[in-house]
Amino acid sequence: MTETIKTVILDAMGGDHGPSVCVAGAVQAINEASYPLKIILVGDESEIRAQLHKHRLNGNGQHIEIVHASEVVRMEDPATDGMRKKDSSISIAMRLHKEGRGSAVVSTGNTGAFMAAGLANLGRLPGVSRPAIACMFPSEQGRTLVVDVGANPVCKPQNLVEFGIMGSVYVRDVMGVESPKVGLLSIGEEPSKGNELTISSHRIFQLSKLNFIGNIEGRDILRGKADVVVCDGFVGNIMLKFAESLQGFLTNAVRRQISNNKFSHLGAILMGPFLRRMRRTFDYAEYGGAPLLGLNGVCTVCHGSSSPKAIRSAIWAAEKGVDHHINEHIADALSESAPSLSEE
Amino acid sequence: MTETIKTVILDAMGGDHGPSVCVAGAVQAINEASYPLKIILVGDESEIRAQLHKHRLNGNGQHIEIVHASEVVRMEDPATDGMRKKDSSISIAMRLHKEGRGSAVVSTGNTGAFMAAGLANLGRLPGVSRPAIACMFPSEQGRTLVVDVGANPVCKPQNLVEFGIMGSVYVRDVMGVESPKVGLLSIGEEPSKGNELTISSHRIFQLSKLNFIGNIEGRDILRGKADVVVCDGFVGNIMLKFAESLQGFLTNAVRRQISNNKFSHLGAILMGPFLRRMRRTFDYAEYGGAPLLGLNGVCTVCHGSSSPKAIRSAIWAAEKGVDHHINEHIADALSESAPSLSEE
Repeated sequence: MTETIKTVILDAMGGDHGPSVCVAGAVQAINEASYPLKIILVGDESEIRAQLHKHRLNGNGQHIEIVHASEVVRMEDPATDGMRKKDSSISIAMRLHKEGRGSAVVSTGNTGAFMAAGLANLGRLPGVSRPAIACMFPSEQGRTLVVDVGANPVCKPQNLVEFGIMGSVYVRDVMGVESPKVGLLSIGEEPSKGNELTISSHRIFQLSKLNFIGNIEGRDILRGKADVVVCDGFVGNIMLKFAESLQGFLTNAVRRQISNNKFSHLGAILMGPFLRRMRRTFDYAEYGGAPLLGLNGVCTVCHGSSSPKAIRSAIWAAEKGVDHHINEHIADALSESAPSLSEE
Repeated sequence: MTETIKTVILDAMGGDHGPSVCVAGAVQAINEASYPLKIILVGDESEIRAQLHKHRLNGNGQHIEIVHASEVVRMEDPATDGMRKKDSSISIAMRLHKEGRGSAVVSTGNTGAFMAAGLANLGRLPGVSRPAIACMFPSEQGRTLVVDVGANPVCKPQNLVEFGIMGSVYVRDVMGVESPKVGLLSIGEEPSKGNELTISSHRIFQLSKLNFIGNIEGRDILRGKADVVVCDGFVGNIMLKFAESLQGFLTNAVRRQISNNKFSHLGAILMGPFLRRMRRTFDYAEYGGAPLLGLNGVCTVCHGSSSPKAIRSAIWAAEKGVDHHINEHIADALSESAPSLSEE
């Protein structure tokens, strides 16, 4: 009896550190996985080979494959380069996924280009009007998934309800939360509070089959009032970047304090592991990356500054999504909800 | 020669703790001010007197006056109660301000009701289409003023530009920043990134006389890239409440860590003052409250959970606004900008 090898495709050229961190993450993912895992590394072959030599791979060496890509979409490039640059690692990774060579794609690259390449190569799942980027925020109860964090700065009510449905399926399938609580991000609990979008979305959410808990406010995210927080990509992106910047802000504040005071220097050493965890708490990459929901494929993007461990987590989380048939479940949930959505 | 006494009106009934904290804050403000300061406390006379007996007031006792109010607008009451309840402490405080009995009004009460009472009793400054609530965020460079944080969930480009002008005058007059940098909160630096509101506002900001530095992102707030951050009240309110919730989140995280680990317990004691400051960092009340900009009066609202020290700071900051003729400067700046605003 042969055990099936699961295969994930990794864009090895993205991120702030290029192939070094991506290759290290891939090796960690393979070596530490509890199941046979293969990773297809896409990017500059010689660079990837040079990095691979620095690592020790368990097993018989059949767990890594390299597919050469002659181009790279850089972080500062426009999103449209994800479609235009056909020989970029992002584009090739998406095509390999479409051809069924791997069951998921992970990238630490340009998020906009990754989404554009996904849309161009994979298309949308049936019933999805707008794919979205979902992102884990920390919370006192564990974690909260915020959808959308930037793919759709301008939304209609129907888009928001779809985000709620897709996020709900993800949290159930990948995080094991039964009947996730879905909250609509607004500026007051009353359905009448908010802007035009939230006020008209509220009614459709109530008609949906979601476990909708109503409007939630900015303070309810970290408190973990909802498992899925729905907002347009403008608000979500501003919140995400604000939260990410807390890391640097806390680090610098600790540094200033340490240089000012001997006692707190000792305190900082003793509190070190905690302070590090606190800073990492607001880095979404630690939680398995940000899934792109609604594409006809399983795609996860990680922060450009991801550690090998973060990339490892993202690879595993993507594989878990495949394993739990997340896309079939999203398509099913959307087709079940179609009547209530069109009542709008 | 007699020195003029400056007079500030304080709604003594607002906040989570009622008159006890407000009276303590008023006494602190008077005792520690570097100039003769009088405070008119508005609220339940017997409750206020009972609280006053607990404190020792410097001077000849002519620095406190009590004006009785038989009603209170509570935190959970609708904003319209600020206009409806004519005998509430908020309403009476605003009327006293209008009559010239005090040069500014401070409240720890219901922000919506405070704004409504201000609009009903004081009206708007010439040239202001929508008054806004401004709020100090911490930043690596010191502080950043965010306008609007909740008064106007739906805005037009002209409103945003006015917010920029009012915020700019406030930061210059009260915080002493020459030519404050004004940033438009969006999801990318390019003028074309954002939603309909930011994209059309960008051009008008460029035509204005402001020191406009273009779009800024969520991460730029704590980094202190701008002195004034402009956004609609929907985005601003969500950000503000998210930032406020960090206090509780950090406190609970520290508590959990301490109960788990002896070393970090010691560390937390040594780091104590720092951790307390860190938590306080995200409480805007520490920075002199949130000024309501654009009303024909000087009004500042503090957080419901403000400490006496925070109330003291808010009273002083409001008085500083009066001293620097902030409202005349706002009206002047708006009338100078009128041509460029109407080019829209």
